Amino acid sequence: VLNAITDVPDVRVGHFTRRDGSEPGSDGSGPFNTGITVVLAHGGDLYTERVPAAVSVLNGSGEVAGREFVDEMGVLDAPIALTGSFNVARVVDALITDATRRRPELGHGERYVHPLVAECSDSYLSDLVARPLGEAETFAALESTRDGPVAEGAVGAGTGLISFGYKAGIGTASRLAPVAGETYTVGALVSTNTGRREQLLVRGVPVGRLLSPALAPDAPQGSIIMVVATDAPLLARQLRRLAQRAHLGLARTGATAWNGSGDFGVAFSTGNRYALDEPLHRLCELADGEISPLFDATVESVEEAILNALCAAGEFVGRAGASVAALPLADVQRLVLGTA
Amino acid sequence: VLNAITDVPDVRVGHFTRRDGSEPGSDGSGPFNTGITVVLAHGGDLYTERVPAAVSVLNGSGEVAGREFVDEMGVLDAPIALTGSFNVARVVDALITDATRRRPELGHGERYVHPLVAECSDSYLSDLVARPLGEAETFAALESTRDGPVAEGAVGAGTGLISFGYKAGIGTASRLAPVAGETYTVGALVSTNTGRREQLLVRGVPVGRLLSPALAPDAPQGSIIMVVATDAPLLARQLRRLAQRAHLGLARTGATAWNGSGDFGVAFSTGNRYALDEPLHRLCELADGEISPLFDATVESVEEAILNALCAAGEFVGRAGASVAALPLADVQRLVLGTA
Amino acid sequence: VLNAITDVPDVRVGHFTRRDGSEPGSDGSGPFNTGITVVLAHGGDLYTERVPAAVSVLNGSGEVAGREFVDEMGVLDAPIALTGSFNVARVVDALITDATRRRPELGHGERYVHPLVAECSDSYLSDLVARPLGEAETFAALESTRDGPVAEGAVGAGTGLISFGYKAGIGTASRLAPVAGETYTVGALVSTNTGRREQLLVRGVPVGRLLSPALAPDAPQGSIIMVVATDAPLLARQLRRLAQRAHLGLARTGATAWNGSGDFGVAFSTGNRYALDEPLHRLCELADGEISPLFDATVESVEEAILNALCAAGEFVGRAGASVAALPLADVQRLVLGTA
Amino acid sequence: VLNAITDVPDVRVGHFTRRDGSEPGSDGSGPFNTGITVVLAHGGDLYTERVPAAVSVLNGSGEVAGREFVDEMGVLDAPIALTGSFNVARVVDALITDATRRRPELGHGERYVHPLVAECSDSYLSDLVARPLGEAETFAALESTRDGPVAEGAVGAGTGLISFGYKAGIGTASRLAPVAGETYTVGALVSTNTGRREQLLVRGVPVGRLLSPALAPDAPQGSIIMVVATDAPLLARQLRRLAQRAHLGLARTGATAWNGSGDFGVAFSTGNRYALDEPLHRLCELADGEISPLFDATVESVEEAILNALCAAGEFVGRAGASVAALPLADVQRLVLGTA
Repeated sequence: VLNAITDVPDVRVGHFTRRDGSEPGSDGSGPFNTGITVVLAHGGDLYTERVPAAVSVLNGSGEVAGREFVDEMGVLDAPIALTGSFNVARVVDALITDATRRRPELGHGERYVHPLVAECSDSYLSDLVARPLGEAETFAALESTRDGPVAEGAVGAGTGLISFGYKAGIGTASRLAPVAGETYTVGALVSTNTGRREQLLVRGVPVGRLLSPALAPDAPQGSIIMVVATDAPLLARQLRRLAQRAHLGLARTGATAWNGSGDFGVAFSTGNRYALDEPLHRLCELADGEISPLFDATVESVEEAILNALCAAGEFVGRAGASVAALPLADVQRLVLGTA
Repeated sequence: VLNAITDVPDVRVGHFTRRDGSEPGSDGSGPFNTGITVVLAHGGDLYTERVPAAVSVLNGSGEVAGREFVDEMGVLDAPIALTGSFNVARVVDALITDATRRRPELGHGERYVHPLVAECSDSYLSDLVARPLGEAETFAALESTRDGPVAEGAVGAGTGLISFGYKAGIGTASRLAPVAGETYTVGALVSTNTGRREQLLVRGVPVGRLLSPALAPDAPQGSIIMVVATDAPLLARQLRRLAQRAHLGLARTGATAWNGSGDFGVAFSTGNRYALDEPLHRLCELADGEISPLFDATVESVEEAILNALCAAGEFVGRAGASVAALPLADVQRLVLGTA
Repeated sequence: VLNAITDVPDVRVGHFTRRDGSEPGSDGSGPFNTGITVVLAHGGDLYTERVPAAVSVLNGSGEVAGREFVDEMGVLDAPIALTGSFNVARVVDALITDATRRRPELGHGERYVHPLVAECSDSYLSDLVARPLGEAETFAALESTRDGPVAEGAVGAGTGLISFGYKAGIGTASRLAPVAGETYTVGALVSTNTGRREQLLVRGVPVGRLLSPALAPDAPQGSIIMVVATDAPLLARQLRRLAQRAHLGLARTGATAWNGSGDFGVAFSTGNRYALDEPLHRLCELADGEISPLFDATVESVEEAILNALCAAGEFVGRAGASVAALPLADVQRLVLGTA
Repeated sequence: VLNAITDVPDVRVGHFTRRDGSEPGSDGSGPFNTGITVVLAHGGDLYTERVPAAVSVLNGSGEVAGREFVDEMGVLDAPIALTGSFNVARVVDALITDATRRRPELGHGERYVHPLVAECSDSYLSDLVARPLGEAETFAALESTRDGPVAEGAVGAGTGLISFGYKAGIGTASRLAPVAGETYTVGALVSTNTGRREQLLVRGVPVGRLLSPALAPDAPQGSIIMVVATDAPLLARQLRRLAQRAHLGLARTGATAWNGSGDFGVAFSTGNRYALDEPLHRLCELADGEISPLFDATVESVEEAILNALCAAGEFVGRAGASVAALPLADVQRLVLGTA
């Protein structure tokens, strides 16, 4: 057990990271402290072996490209990717290039593909406007996907992100849930840019208010994308229920989904597959009466994934010399555990 | 084939009709020209053999009691009932009485029941305020449920309804849909109170404008409830798709879902059953790629069900002597078929 | 400042409480430990001076009668009432009686009324099936509405409720929010039946796990209704945003909205009025860019209202001698404050 | 009056059209028969003078980039653009480039921009995979925006579209609606790729079945985007109501929103403006009780816009020599008017 979304069998994660620090490029653009994180529901052909999925909206001042298809059809037919705000379109475009190369029938007849691409803004530490991530970077992120341990903190889509005034980024966690005689896994991966310092709760302790002011008082608040995976045999209606519980995990960290945030849950199950061109799907649906332990596991995984992102990210100096402190772990430990 | 929602195997329909004409009762209340129409997904125990279901909203200025449960759980656990607007609560209450008598465990532990009760207003022809329908009337409607032919026009919940300025009420129709090597049935039953006279289209012919003005110029517009049943193996997500196509069938009759209407679709499938207390459900889901013929069948069934309601209802004199004409069928036939 | 929803000017609250204890009635029904809580947006004519409102759904295994109208029209045209699950229909019916007596034009022409009635189940402590609350009880609750202090705990709709294994019921709280040069009030009132003991967090401390097991190990989990009021000039779209933040307040108490719950937010603003029959409404809408302090205030008010419900309710013995302990306040204080 | 969406004061439309016919390019890609259509709510700064807006979903097997922001905030802060399916990302990207050049503060602090870009597939007549539309083409479409007459048929995003087996594309229409002593305008612009030949209804006459088979029997069905503008003072909640009525206009043409379609309504009002950075917006909202004539105008405008797209488009030969006939207008006229 890795305490990662990849504890859900078949799930793969990859990152492309661009980390320039504080120096712009010779053409005046940059610096770029940004990246792409890719989550694959499995290692096979995502287009022909679709998995059930759902998206939830806590606050919609953001973008989840490809959401319409998931809402209507209840499946994923492509990778999930996370990136910096204005880069969504370029990553979608690159994923279409990749998909149409792999599957030449896409874009003909009634065959399409719908990459699910969501974003947080890294504009405080990175040049958001110049959009440095295109095909090469997206392909690199795809190439890097694998099971096993997941890098956290200032990597991939998390490279330039901040939460609660401290450096954050990618975080992940997982839980085992005993359900109806089986044990299922729920894993979460977040790309977190959420929260003001004074909101931060760690296991309920208002450490944000107790810590000395962070170094980035003018850093804007941002968004969070919460990806939840499970091997429990759920379908889209139920995965929407899980995605909504991701919001509750967020709440436990003290964030309140401020006005300008794009806070979304994405949930998928590897426990059912929809084979393309099969006229009738035979599916298993865990009874809703058994589902509550998966709700608990979702809430806990998301809460911990956010805290893990904060714990894994170090101090960072980015665009225009903007500096963001790391969460002072020793101080947090002292405040939470009450140890001297 | 009966051209009725009961062409879908297992589906049952019953009516309770109260028809007082124009005379109030001795206590000053009434007259009552109203009723209850019940649709059962099957003749067994609805609570323990649940069927997938969904509700759609075209215009929400109305009420569908029990919708929250269907939205969240994707199943029906009780009868569907239609009635006059202010009577919804009394019919819900009576259905709870009935359910708790039949299943004494309901109302204990985690066992509840959620009757799905929707309404149209019959206030032009009936005393809406006095709410004459309670347990006896609801039980009578339940008792009368059966498969086979369905009475249409001024019966049950349709007793006091008007559409397009003409007397309307309950209508039903069905279609066969060839899908993936099978033939499935789609049936619709509507309780229709929708439309102004000048909107009415019959097979596209603007008969509403061409007919001489109806006799009830001050009759208010109302709502429509469109119940769609199928034996195709669908689940809730797909049934919501069917329910939304019911709106398109309505549109073909010329109605535009005016501001004050409560226009809802309700769709269920008898092709999957959820056995209560089963921890894991094994389900069949027709591939979405095969579903379009069911969409066509829904649109056509709903359109025809509305017209059937108009064709079946005769002239009616109700509350305060209010008179509503029947659709002049010979004139409509002449206008639509172009025959002299 | 009362730390209550009535801190929002114009808002009124009333309770009807029926508390029989453990003895059934001579006819074998009962005992009844249940009630009705009414929230009025203002003390005037709710039907003709409507206020903007919205409902949010965290988990829909419950019922909010009247929700369709609020969703579509964005206003309340009637009281909000909370009660025990199977009593919703009878309270709706009584509120229709009351409204049609006060406003004889309702139920005629295009004039209707849509009471918003939500529920939690009090079946562990009260006879849910027999539904003892009708017109007299509803009218008494309406009569009792007033501004000023709000009784909390085992009163009104909260009489028979349990949360986190301890006796709960009605709770309320409020916050002041500085916004754009003004100070607005946000108040919450909850009817809480949510959570298992081991989930309870008080200011983040897992007191539920640390306390000795509660006395009602077989008490089922339940639902929560979270009513949020504000005098900030918001409209329905924004009030839906507030209602969704109520979910985040719930999350902070440790609840995860289990499968069988009906967890809903209801938010309204007294800062705009819709005069009936006015053809054009002149409205003020706080800029969304200014709204975040109201989100924070909502989250905090709801969290505290839930805790207040627990703090205010004492030990309770109900149906079949079922006993529910009060939250042991001294122990909680010790655990949360770390004092000996 | 032009019978166009530009009859709504301030609204502007522009097209970029690429029409290669049947010849691929020297590099093997193409031919491209595709384009971009831009709709601007007004000619000022869309980012700082936002208009209320809403999106509706009839069938979601498509994409509307930017929808999350409109759903949450109820406003447009950018142009609306329509294009071929796989080109959505490139058009979004170009619109971000344009916006950030015009408004250098975008992409900094809390300033973003959310172009609303929707699509239909032109893969039958155009090379969808190669995505030929980038910044130059998007800027050309923006440059071409103007009030006054709107080109219809095989232009802009409509260049390669087909409806009901006949060549289609862009269509527009408008209606005047008398409301509460004022006369407001409702205009629709559609990009239509919807329907099978045998479904087509023209004023209710099943001309699709009566006409001889079309020349493109294997042309796939597609999607439709229905943009509705009005100068009536509505807000987002009400505009969603209008957007949903666009579905009813579609239904009158015989289309049933088949499984694979991305059928969306987009509605905006020029009758209210949200000035950025204003802390409190003073708005006018037409009473919902007055709104029904706008519903009728929406249904009629959308129905006619679809038919206008069919009437304006001529025979077309595209990719791989695929030929699509024009709707045979004389035959249709004969069938509909019954003239010899």
